[in-house]
Amino acid sequence: MSVLPQITAAIGEKYVLTGGDTADYVTDWTGAYSGQPLAVLRPADTAQVAAVLKIANENGTPVVPVSGHTGLTGATLGTDALILSLDRLSQITKIDPKGRTATVGAGVILSTLHDAVDAHDLIFPLTFGARGSAMIGGVLSTNAGGSNVVRYGNTRDLCLGVEVVMADGRIMNLMSALHKDNSGLNLRQLVIGAEGTLGIITAAVMKLWPKPRAYGTAMVAVPSLDDALDLLNIVQDETGGAVEAFEYMPRNYIDRHMALVKGATAPFAESYDINILLEVGATAEHDAAPTLTGEIPIISKMEAILGNMLENGKVIDAVIAQNEAQRRTMWERREQAGEIVFQGGPFVNTDVAVPIDKVGAFEAAVTPRLKAIDPDARELIVAHLGDGNIHHTTYTKHNDPSIHDAMTAAVEDVVQELGGSFSAEHGIGLSKLETMRRRKDPVALDAMRAIKAALDPKGILNPGKVIPD
Amino acid sequence: MSVLPQITAAIGEKYVLTGGDTADYVTDWTGAYSGQPLAVLRPADTAQVAAVLKIANENGTPVVPVSGHTGLTGATLGTDALILSLDRLSQITKIDPKGRTATVGAGVILSTLHDAVDAHDLIFPLTFGARGSAMIGGVLSTNAGGSNVVRYGNTRDLCLGVEVVMADGRIMNLMSALHKDNSGLNLRQLVIGAEGTLGIITAAVMKLWPKPRAYGTAMVAVPSLDDALDLLNIVQDETGGAVEAFEYMPRNYIDRHMALVKGATAPFAESYDINILLEVGATAEHDAAPTLTGEIPIISKMEAILGNMLENGKVIDAVIAQNEAQRRTMWERREQAGEIVFQGGPFVNTDVAVPIDKVGAFEAAVTPRLKAIDPDARELIVAHLGDGNIHHTTYTKHNDPSIHDAMTAAVEDVVQELGGSFSAEHGIGLSKLETMRRRKDPVALDAMRAIKAALDPKGILNPGKVIPD
Repeated sequence: MSVLPQITAAIGEKYVLTGGDTADYVTDWTGAYSGQPLAVLRPADTAQVAAVLKIANENGTPVVPVSGHTGLTGATLGTDALILSLDRLSQITKIDPKGRTATVGAGVILSTLHDAVDAHDLIFPLTFGARGSAMIGGVLSTNAGGSNVVRYGNTRDLCLGVEVVMADGRIMNLMSALHKDNSGLNLRQLVIGAEGTLGIITAAVMKLWPKPRAYGTAMVAVPSLDDALDLLNIVQDETGGAVEAFEYMPRNYIDRHMALVKGATAPFAESYDINILLEVGATAEHDAAPTLTGEIPIISKMEAILGNMLENGKVIDAVIAQNEAQRRTMWERREQAGEIVFQGGPFVNTDVAVPIDKVGAFEAAVTPRLKAIDPDARELIVAHLGDGNIHHTTYTKHNDPSIHDAMTAAVEDVVQELGGSFSAEHGIGLSKLETMRRRKDPVALDAMRAIKAALDPKGILNPGKVIPD
Repeated sequence: MSVLPQITAAIGEKYVLTGGDTADYVTDWTGAYSGQPLAVLRPADTAQVAAVLKIANENGTPVVPVSGHTGLTGATLGTDALILSLDRLSQITKIDPKGRTATVGAGVILSTLHDAVDAHDLIFPLTFGARGSAMIGGVLSTNAGGSNVVRYGNTRDLCLGVEVVMADGRIMNLMSALHKDNSGLNLRQLVIGAEGTLGIITAAVMKLWPKPRAYGTAMVAVPSLDDALDLLNIVQDETGGAVEAFEYMPRNYIDRHMALVKGATAPFAESYDINILLEVGATAEHDAAPTLTGEIPIISKMEAILGNMLENGKVIDAVIAQNEAQRRTMWERREQAGEIVFQGGPFVNTDVAVPIDKVGAFEAAVTPRLKAIDPDARELIVAHLGDGNIHHTTYTKHNDPSIHDAMTAAVEDVVQELGGSFSAEHGIGLSKLETMRRRKDPVALDAMRAIKAALDPKGILNPGKVIPD
C-alpha cells in the first residue's frame, strides 16, 4: 500500500513531489550517485516531519533526509525511498548576541546564517565552498569541517542543542543553549555526524563567535613539514590561539594552479616545495586598529614571528598580504582547489586525516606504493595542515576500477598505519561503506549496528548508508 | 556460582580484595552513599579488564568501575557488585609535544598528568579541587568540568581518542589522535559522560595546550549580571578569547567567606552585590614579557579595559593582582567554596546550568519560590558564570527530607523554565536518578534506555545508575 495518500494528507499535495518533479533529487551534483525516489517531501515544520516519519515507520518505508544536497558521498539519494527535504524549515528563530547563540531550522542556508549574524558583529565560523547551498541540517548530519577547524572546531563543536525527529515520529527536544550539561548520555553528539541514520535533525542552537576586526594573512615557504608544525605552534602561542587557517599546498599544487587557472600567480618569486597559507584573526582593538604610523599590530606581530624564523632557517620565504586584494588572491589559490583537482582524469580522490605531526610521514610512505601500482601515477595534495586533514588525489592513465580501488586502498593503508582516519570531513554515505566494513574497528562497527537497531528498529532511516551490514 | 575463582585466576589473588580489604570502596567521601561490594578488583591492564568483563558478563554479575573515587553522585558504589578499580592503569604512555597530545591510562591521576606535561611547557587544562586524587577514567566517565571550561571546554572537548572495554569483554579501539574523523557514529562522545554504563574506558588520548606565561587576574564588581556578561564578552574580544576563568561570588558569599575562613580578606574596601573573579592567560611573549618600564602587557591591557568600563559605569570597582601572592588570595576565596558551602546545615545543594545570559533571571525567580517553602531560607550561590554553571545552596531550619526535596524541585523548576540543566558538571549517578526520570525529555530517556540495552544486554555495567528504569 502506498504511503503517499496519508503523507499528502499530512503535508499537503503541493509538497509531495513525484515523477519529473523529483529530478533535482535523482542524482547528486558530482553525478556519481543516483536513485529513483518514491517521492520528494517538503514538510513545513517539525510537526510535519514527525507526521511523515510516523507514517513511514508504520509502513516500513525508507526515508532519506536531504537539505542542501551538496554532499560528496551519495548519502542523500535513494531508490523507492521518501526523500525528505528540510529546505522549508528555514527560519532563524533567534539570534542572542549576549549569549552568542543562534537558534535555527535545519533548512537555513549556511551563508544566510553568516549574513544574519554579521549584523551583530558576530560570526558563525563554519565555512566552505558550498556555503551558498549547504544547510544547517546537512552540516550537522555530516559534521562538516572546512578551513577554520583549527580555530573553531568541526560542526559538532559549534552546536549546543538539537531537535531530532526519531524513527517512530516522536520529537526529541535537546534544544538547550548550555555550555555544561551532564544529564545522561550525550545524544546530541551521537546524532551529529550520523548522516540521518538515527533520527532527523530539524532545528539546532549554534554557537557564535566575535567577528575578527583584522586578519593577518601570509604565504610562507618552509623547509619541511616538521618546520611547518613548529611555525603553527609558535604562531598559536604568540597569538593566544588565533590561527584561523593553516593550509598546505605543495609545489605541484602551485604549478597546477598556475597552469589551469587563468590569471593565477605564483606566491613567491622562487618556487618551493612546501607552501603554507597562514591566517590569523584579531578580535582585539589593540591588535586590529592601525597605529599612529599606520601599521596593523597583528600584521606587525606576524612579521616579527616570520622574520625571526627566517633568521633561524625555519622559514625560507614569506609574503604577508598588505591589503584585502592580496589576501583574496592568497585565498583564491586555496579555494580554487576544486578546479585544480577535478581536471585531467582519470583520478582517485580521497579525504583522509592523520595526526598533525604525521603528514610528512604520510607523503613519504604513500608515493612508492602508488608507483608500484602505476609507475606513471602522479599525486596532488592539498591539506588542512592545522588539523591533519589531507585531500589526496592520484592521477593515472588507467580507467580500470580495480586499479582505482587498489590506489584508494594504498592511500588508506598508509593512513591506517599512521593511526589516521579514512574519512576526515566528508563522511561515509555510500562512498566509503566498504571501507568502513574493512577498516573500522570491528567492535565499534558492532556497537554502531546495535545502536542503529535500537533507535531505528525497522531500519527506515537512510538505510544502507554509513553502517555496513 | 561465584565468579571470584575465575576472576582470581585472571588477575591474581593479590588484586581481588574482599571483606575488610574493600573498606575504601564501601562508602564515598561525602558519606552520602554506600554499598557492600562482592569484591574490589584491581586489574593490571586493558587485557585484564577485558577478562574480568567477559567473566562478569557470562555470569550476569554487576560491574561498577571506579578510578579516583572523588565523585559526588554515588556512581562508583554498589552492593553485590564487582567494584572494578582502574588505578593500576596508571601509565602515561606518550607525550607528544609537537602534536600536543598525551596518551594515558585510565588510572593516571589528574595532577600527575599536569606535572608530566609541565616539563614540556604545556598544560592539560582540566583542573578542580580533587585533582590530586581524580583519575582520567573518572574525569572522562563524568565529563568533568571545573573553572576553566570557558576557555578549554569540558573533558569531552579535551579528548581525541579512547579505548573502551565493552560489556562482553571485547576491546573497542578508538585511540586516535585526530582532529577530524568522520568515520561513522561518534562512539567516543557517547561513552564520555556515560558514567561507566556503556563500557569501561581504559585509556585515552588527551589534548594539550600551551602553558600561559603570564596571568592577568582581577576581582571586579559590576552593577548587574548583564554588565558582567558585557564584561566577559569585551574581555574575550579584546584578548582573542583568553579568558581562563569568570567566577561569580555574590555579596553573601564574600561575607560568609570572611566569617568562616580564618585570615580571609575582603576583595574591595567597600562591599558589593556582584563580585567577579576574572582571569586571563597570556601565551604570547609580547603579552607576557615585562616591558622596559616593568609592566606586564596583559595586565596593562586588563587595566585599560576595566578603566574604560569604570568610566562607562559598567564596572563599579576593580582590583588587579600585582603579584602571585595577590593572585593566590583571589583564587583561594573561590577555591574555599567547599568550606564555605558545607558548613551550617541543614542545607540543600545543587549543581545546575542555565544559558549564560539567564543567571540573573535564575536568581530573581528562585528566591520567592524558596521563601514560599521556608520564609527563613537563606541562599548561597557561587557560579562559573562564564559557562552558566551555578552551584546553588539553600540553608533551612528544616531537617524534613520532603522539604529538602521541595527545595531541590523549586530550584530545578526554575532551571527547567529557563532552558537549563539539572546537572551541569557532577553527573547523575544515583543522586539525580529521580530527577532524570521526571525532567529529562522522555524521548531522550527512551533513546538512552534503548542504547543501554543494545550495548549492555545483560545490564551488568554500573546498573541502576544514570538511566532510570
